[in-house]
Amino acid sequence: MVEKFSHIDESRNVHMVDVTFKQDSERIAVAHAKVKMKKETLQAILQDKIAKGNVLTTAKVAAIMAAKKTSDLIPMCHNINLTHVDVNFSFDEEQNFIEIKSTVKCVGKTGAEMEALTAAAIAALTIYDMCKAIDKTMEICEIYLLEKSGGKSGEYRREDNR
Amino acid sequence: MVEKFSHIDESRNVHMVDVTFKQDSERIAVAHAKVKMKKETLQAILQDKIAKGNVLTTAKVAAIMAAKKTSDLIPMCHNINLTHVDVNFSFDEEQNFIEIKSTVKCVGKTGAEMEALTAAAIAALTIYDMCKAIDKTMEICEIYLLEKSGGKSGEYRREDNR
Amino acid sequence: MVEKFSHIDESRNVHMVDVTFKQDSERIAVAHAKVKMKKETLQAILQDKIAKGNVLTTAKVAAIMAAKKTSDLIPMCHNINLTHVDVNFSFDEEQNFIEIKSTVKCVGKTGAEMEALTAAAIAALTIYDMCKAIDKTMEICEIYLLEKSGGKSGEYRREDNR
Amino acid sequence: MVEKFSHIDESRNVHMVDVTFKQDSERIAVAHAKVKMKKETLQAILQDKIAKGNVLTTAKVAAIMAAKKTSDLIPMCHNINLTHVDVNFSFDEEQNFIEIKSTVKCVGKTGAEMEALTAAAIAALTIYDMCKAIDKTMEICEIYLLEKSGGKSGEYRREDNR
Amino acid sequence: MVEKFSHIDESRNVHMVDVTFKQDSERIAVAHAKVKMKKETLQAILQDKIAKGNVLTTAKVAAIMAAKKTSDLIPMCHNINLTHVDVNFSFDEEQNFIEIKSTVKCVGKTGAEMEALTAAAIAALTIYDMCKAIDKTMEICEIYLLEKSGGKSGEYRREDNR
Amino acid sequence: MVEKFSHIDESRNVHMVDVTFKQDSERIAVAHAKVKMKKETLQAILQDKIAKGNVLTTAKVAAIMAAKKTSDLIPMCHNINLTHVDVNFSFDEEQNFIEIKSTVKCVGKTGAEMEALTAAAIAALTIYDMCKAIDKTMEICEIYLLEKSGGKSGEYRREDNR
Repeated sequence: MVEKFSHIDESRNVHMVDVTFKQDSERIAVAHAKVKMKKETLQAILQDKIAKGNVLTTAKVAAIMAAKKTSDLIPMCHNINLTHVDVNFSFDEEQNFIEIKSTVKCVGKTGAEMEALTAAAIAALTIYDMCKAIDKTMEICEIYLLEKSGGKSGEYRREDNR
Repeated sequence: MVEKFSHIDESRNVHMVDVTFKQDSERIAVAHAKVKMKKETLQAILQDKIAKGNVLTTAKVAAIMAAKKTSDLIPMCHNINLTHVDVNFSFDEEQNFIEIKSTVKCVGKTGAEMEALTAAAIAALTIYDMCKAIDKTMEICEIYLLEKSGGKSGEYRREDNR
Repeated sequence: MVEKFSHIDESRNVHMVDVTFKQDSERIAVAHAKVKMKKETLQAILQDKIAKGNVLTTAKVAAIMAAKKTSDLIPMCHNINLTHVDVNFSFDEEQNFIEIKSTVKCVGKTGAEMEALTAAAIAALTIYDMCKAIDKTMEICEIYLLEKSGGKSGEYRREDNR
Repeated sequence: MVEKFSHIDESRNVHMVDVTFKQDSERIAVAHAKVKMKKETLQAILQDKIAKGNVLTTAKVAAIMAAKKTSDLIPMCHNINLTHVDVNFSFDEEQNFIEIKSTVKCVGKTGAEMEALTAAAIAALTIYDMCKAIDKTMEICEIYLLEKSGGKSGEYRREDNR
Repeated sequence: MVEKFSHIDESRNVHMVDVTFKQDSERIAVAHAKVKMKKETLQAILQDKIAKGNVLTTAKVAAIMAAKKTSDLIPMCHNINLTHVDVNFSFDEEQNFIEIKSTVKCVGKTGAEMEALTAAAIAALTIYDMCKAIDKTMEICEIYLLEKSGGKSGEYRREDNR
Repeated sequence: MVEKFSHIDESRNVHMVDVTFKQDSERIAVAHAKVKMKKETLQAILQDKIAKGNVLTTAKVAAIMAAKKTSDLIPMCHNINLTHVDVNFSFDEEQNFIEIKSTVKCVGKTGAEMEALTAAAIAALTIYDMCKAIDKTMEICEIYLLEKSGGKSGEYRREDNR
């Protein structure tokens, strides 16, 4: 094979990590996201008055489907088989936000952090989409990993973040 | 985490079933579908006279490809690795229909029923698409599970349905 | 270019129809599907007691998403931009079935029949998936085109089909 | 058609908005996101020392590809043809964050807000993925629409948000 | 917005070309590919003796489907609506190769060169896949653009390449 | 089941090979491709002067993402979980070509040859896309399997092909 590296190839480091010899293990990842909105927007969601329809179920279905295609979105992410995805919403009617918590499990050689984070982000974006006709100022924030377990790097739990 | 559930969240039940602790096992699912059509349409298919081309091979390729993306279509369906997909057609030239039988196998924590049903449905829809220029009255029916084996719920065989 | 056709190429007819010189027009297609089930299954859906969660909203979201990827499922189907997708359910508590009606619109060179039929089929398959833990005997049937308008072939309306 | 609505169908509102009769117009949407990280993490990115490789180009490619599949992620989002996607990064080495600005254009019946927001979110998630081996505490925040133009609702510009 | 570019951002040039103000026009692109193989392999294909089944129809369906998802494969490629895709095969039984010619048409702001090239490449890869059990030495070569028309850059025709 | 095969079904052989009872094993496949171009084109790539941006990193990201969706492109290909993907480029400034070498690993019942070949082909097509504005004569060639190991058929190494 010709190998005349007279030039540095700027792509040389990019690669999908080799996990061939990693052990399969049960893995859980939990991620968090928040959608801040106007008082009227949150009330419209809670009273199911958004013209596009049932906001939260749509967001949840979108999040679960997105978790399954994470490796198609995040370039260096391994494609893995998920064994469980769930997404929950809670509401703060004083500060007017929806809090999203996504849980993803798998049994495999790599963790499910990106799947959990992607599910949370897509749930948030779907809420935005369903409500943007009445509120373009919504803001998605605090997307982070809450905890993970399984795998060689073991347990991680985000420190007191509130 | 803020948890002020002053409102019922109508999405609260939707989730992908947790199969993390299920055992891997060999699984087979066989599904059925039927496409009813005009006499001329069936004859045109059998004599390979449809303008769009080879109807049955196209339908079969479509069905096999669809089986592989079932989890991208059916929201709560787990993404699994299939070990075999096959689709067969038989013809009734008296009652003018094509019968579709799809077989899907996998080794995993969940069954392949939805994959077999999706393959059968997409084969039927592809036949419709290839022939719709000459027959808009075609009807797809009798999509059901013929049998499954493997997994905790064990064997299932549809009772005498003919 | 070498062109020694000593053999018949059995694939020679398969192709995506050339619509380059067709006019853009507003098009509507309406499709139908039915899911027959046990009495208990329909009642569990209507009372929102299915363990996997909200069956109908999940089926509807799945159907709308599937309509958008019809051309990725049906090989010879053109990829088009949809301008509207809606799916409605009605229930027959005597004969125990759910009836699905999907409406798809676009402005383009080809109709949206396959999109409407695919949406109806995927809605039906999603209902099957959500309920299969309690009822494996469900049957999907009567998938057909109810009506279409727009395009050169003009109006089509299924004749008295009941 | 049978229409015995003895029960409320909780999915009845969910639908993709009908834009059939909207005019095509040139549309631009600009979205924003931020990834907060440890000082070491930002320095490793800027000095191209992340083991997985070139973080920013990978994030940008991911963002552009994600913009094109937004309608496959956000259920009620129309599938549209994009005419331009670009993503830019800027760095704050004092507060240790990367700022993402995505611009999406199209000529069509609906805006590109969701495409711009999705591009920004996926760029941020890709940065997270590339760096998570050295920093699990990264946080994605301030995902919002900066501005949009085109379409019936006209101009929108986020008010002085800093 | 913070803009402290103390570092060069190596991703700064990557973007999808802005075609917002380009005119729609009818465009055609024709691409070429060749698969070289053992004599026995070509004969097995022509006599339909490959265990995996009908090689050429499967390759053609794969190619047509791939053309439609080119923008999902080639990062900076615009997503466009195709109006026609066709793929033809010819055989050279002396030099033992299959020649592939793919034609793609669209009406839009960008050409369909990448779609035609992707169709040709995927047809070739599918032939490889179907036959690899009997011949691992197959080689795909001569993938190039034969001609294109439409758009501002006008006609292109590959010069006498044989 | 009705089985009146009065006609030969031309699709009868097409199927995805049954690997249900194959053993999982570690598998590696390495593929090769080459892109021939004008001297100016190669120099523009090496000096990072292509208007669309960083050619090689974009090609590499595209290749890695394509490897993961091989089973969505090649109809009879099994969907498998990859454990590693890498792509390297080398340059020949005398004969003016880029050589691509892709390596794919998995632990499973089927090999990763098609994934490696698809990665190489998509890397080549992406290089074409990024440079086609300045050079339409580029040609992709020499796509073949360099080596594979693992699985029942064991080792394969292409014989001295240069």
